Amino acid sequence: MKYPPSLVALIRELSRLPGIGPKSAQRLAFYLFEQPREDIERLAGSLLSAKRDLHSCPVCFNITDAEVCDVCSDPARDQAIICVVEEPGDVIAIERSGEYRGLYHVLHGVLSPMNGVGPEQLHIRPLLPRVTDGQEVILATGTTVEGDATALYLQRLLEPLGALVSRIAYGLPVGGALEYADEVTLGRAMTGRQQVSKPRPPPPG
Amino acid sequence: MKYPPSLVALIRELSRLPGIGPKSAQRLAFYLFEQPREDIERLAGSLLSAKRDLHSCPVCFNITDAEVCDVCSDPARDQAIICVVEEPGDVIAIERSGEYRGLYHVLHGVLSPMNGVGPEQLHIRPLLPRVTDGQEVILATGTTVEGDATALYLQRLLEPLGALVSRIAYGLPVGGALEYADEVTLGRAMTGRQQVSKPRPPPPG
Repeated sequence: MKYPPSLVALIRELSRLPGIGPKSAQRLAFYLFEQPREDIERLAGSLLSAKRDLHSCPVCFNITDAEVCDVCSDPARDQAIICVVEEPGDVIAIERSGEYRGLYHVLHGVLSPMNGVGPEQLHIRPLLPRVTDGQEVILATGTTVEGDATALYLQRLLEPLGALVSRIAYGLPVGGALEYADEVTLGRAMTGRQQVSKPRPPPPG
Repeated sequence: MKYPPSLVALIRELSRLPGIGPKSAQRLAFYLFEQPREDIERLAGSLLSAKRDLHSCPVCFNITDAEVCDVCSDPARDQAIICVVEEPGDVIAIERSGEYRGLYHVLHGVLSPMNGVGPEQLHIRPLLPRVTDGQEVILATGTTVEGDATALYLQRLLEPLGALVSRIAYGLPVGGALEYADEVTLGRAMTGRQQVSKPRPPPPG
């Protein structure tokens, strides 16, 4: 006896998802088989419409369904601060903490030479024109080795542009992914940020 | 800042799936956002075509895309034995053990009064006309409390019909779900099954 081909196809597609192995994919497929047709159509529809409607904001690379994202297009946000994060989920996590009213820049990853991720694979280049003299930049990549390395790389890149660079405070447990921090810890980490660049000396004369 | 509505909808649909909580659903949604459009369309398509093509076999209630499933329509299978299992995944697990050449009957669940699952919620009634005098029936529900109770219920129902009822051998670890057993254990459990009904005395005269 063999699985019908459309069941095999469904299990194969489900097992491509992160964190879902072949056994989980099989269980999911049998679960879905038992659900009413409308539920399956709604799930499939939500996949397609999410893919159709959503894209990266051309300014900060956060996920949005508008031309420019809610944060970038909100004049009430503090334009003098940019918070650099790894992933769109990190923006949501920081917004929930309620401690931050500036802008964002989403890298979509961290530097990871072992996995072939260099500066060109991240949205680092479009960050540079956003950073003007005296601009404050908070580096809020995770407190992992790769997050720290990425922050150090950005610090060296942004300081010569006159940016006032700070690193999110180590209120987070070291080695933790930003997304899993609780809101209070994350809020404290934002307010307790430590400046890592010295202010430029005033121009001579 | 708020999630765009189509992202909210996708996360909501994903978090309905068993074993996927709100955080996992969010991670999955961001993962899917990064994937190429063709991959999303293939996933959505496989959901819809699985739902369109697949149905329960009208004889044994296994999943099939044919009118009657592969096992029921195969004349080489031993028609004298019916193996009763909880879920379609259990059929696959037993087929992999290679120890069984008879037919199946899939209950699509176990008796579980606490969860409102009584005999009417399972495919028990259509099993009765399949059981003729002298028919061998192997009860291969899981070795959980509910699996055992279901087996006992079926035994009492089928013996009066003249069935030779056996229970799958306790080669499985007690308390385990059938689907996770390894193939050798499952094969031994099938061959070592213990008869639970006495053969009927020959009719007087």
